[in-house]
Amino acid sequence: MIIIGEKINGTRKKVSAAIQERDSDFIQALAKSQAEAGSHFLDVNAGTSPEREADDMAWLVDTIQAVTELPLCLDSANPKALKAGLERVDKTPVINSVSGEKPRIEGVLPLALEYKTGLILLALDDETGIAGTAAGRMAVVHRLVNMAREGGLKEDQLFVDPLVTAISTGDKNALITYDSIRAVREAYPQAHITCGLSNISFGMPLRSLINQTFMCMCIYLGLDSAIIDPNNRDLTGVMLAAEMLMGRDKFCQNFSRAYRAGRIGPKKNS
Amino acid sequence: MIIIGEKINGTRKKVSAAIQERDSDFIQALAKSQAEAGSHFLDVNAGTSPEREADDMAWLVDTIQAVTELPLCLDSANPKALKAGLERVDKTPVINSVSGEKPRIEGVLPLALEYKTGLILLALDDETGIAGTAAGRMAVVHRLVNMAREGGLKEDQLFVDPLVTAISTGDKNALITYDSIRAVREAYPQAHITCGLSNISFGMPLRSLINQTFMCMCIYLGLDSAIIDPNNRDLTGVMLAAEMLMGRDKFCQNFSRAYRAGRIGPKKNS
Repeated sequence: MIIIGEKINGTRKKVSAAIQERDSDFIQALAKSQAEAGSHFLDVNAGTSPEREADDMAWLVDTIQAVTELPLCLDSANPKALKAGLERVDKTPVINSVSGEKPRIEGVLPLALEYKTGLILLALDDETGIAGTAAGRMAVVHRLVNMAREGGLKEDQLFVDPLVTAISTGDKNALITYDSIRAVREAYPQAHITCGLSNISFGMPLRSLINQTFMCMCIYLGLDSAIIDPNNRDLTGVMLAAEMLMGRDKFCQNFSRAYRAGRIGPKKNS
Repeated sequence: MIIIGEKINGTRKKVSAAIQERDSDFIQALAKSQAEAGSHFLDVNAGTSPEREADDMAWLVDTIQAVTELPLCLDSANPKALKAGLERVDKTPVINSVSGEKPRIEGVLPLALEYKTGLILLALDDETGIAGTAAGRMAVVHRLVNMAREGGLKEDQLFVDPLVTAISTGDKNALITYDSIRAVREAYPQAHITCGLSNISFGMPLRSLINQTFMCMCIYLGLDSAIIDPNNRDLTGVMLAAEMLMGRDKFCQNFSRAYRAGRIGPKKNS
């Protein structure tokens, strides 16, 4: 699983305050703790007003790269902010994200093609929003994958997000995501698949339980990436168990090591 | 999911003592608590020496049926004990279990056919024990299903157990069970599929986490029955979440009701 650490997100109050106060200690602590917890990318979302966003993104990228060598996931719909980040990154980043919506295709996609970045593709467009069938979502995915490949990106640079809608608003909603994941895996075997897993439990009690159960099933079907809090012990535990149970953990070493390092399981001495 | 409550099992020390002392209060409390927790069948295993087992099984059946109307799952390899139970049950029971082993085919299968009971079929035989491939296990399953059907049992009376071996002894072991479950579901769409889930985590730390993750994946593939402790809140929570996420919980009512009734989720006031 490719873990994209989600915590440096300016839509969170404390992060937003740290960005505005240029509190590099706070941001760097988030970067380091997510790196130590096993992230492969760090999401960077400045989450501020369009006027400030490019400056804030530039400061965030510099600040984070001062303490970690992890590649970044530049999270914005604003081409200026993305450009500011792209000019500063040390390693090839992922751009989060393009969709079938016109402003994203015209503003975000060209940057991904110019800088040859990784790219998250959301299965929604202006016309229908999020389609209520896997076929509808796949129509958008096919269009986006074609544009990305014609522009020179390789299939394994793409992270397809088939989208997740709340089970509380439709009791077949998880099935639509399952069918979409299967369809993406079949059509694009080299592409990564990522999801905003926690949307599934919106409006329900016991959200963590539902999120973890949903993640298991998605991993079975081919999900190989997630934007999550890598310090969430429960989610990490389920993820490592799921990988092990898919036969991808030789001699169960990753799981056992994470346990011995105290990264999963009930917290000790607390 | 068809829950077979596992707790009345004479291989457990306290249960064994209760059977020998004819402590009906203890046994009946186990029966009632498992019934209240949503069991569909109660497993009954006298777990004693062959000389005592028939008497003990008879007493257990009478004792349990005095406090619950649930059908029973008569758990023995001993034809005399099974016969003693079969002559006393009020409702059609399940017999646990037959396999490709000669004594089971000669001693247990005829009773299931005579009494037209439900029947658990284990995918192992004398020749190879537990086969290391799904194809090997399915060869046994096909043979057992054919014998059961030729003897008059219907497909939906059969509970196929494709068997689970420890991930610690082979990092592809879960995959063998997955492939077997898929094969059973395809070959026998009306048959139930059940598993001794907890075998998967033998020899590993964090066994509950591994068991729950494994159960999610098995339910996705078609597992529709399990012999478990129905009072295990965590396992029940994962099971209800998994059923909901498979689109089988209309308006998420079962999950929500179980939550409101305090049957799943962190314990309150404790």
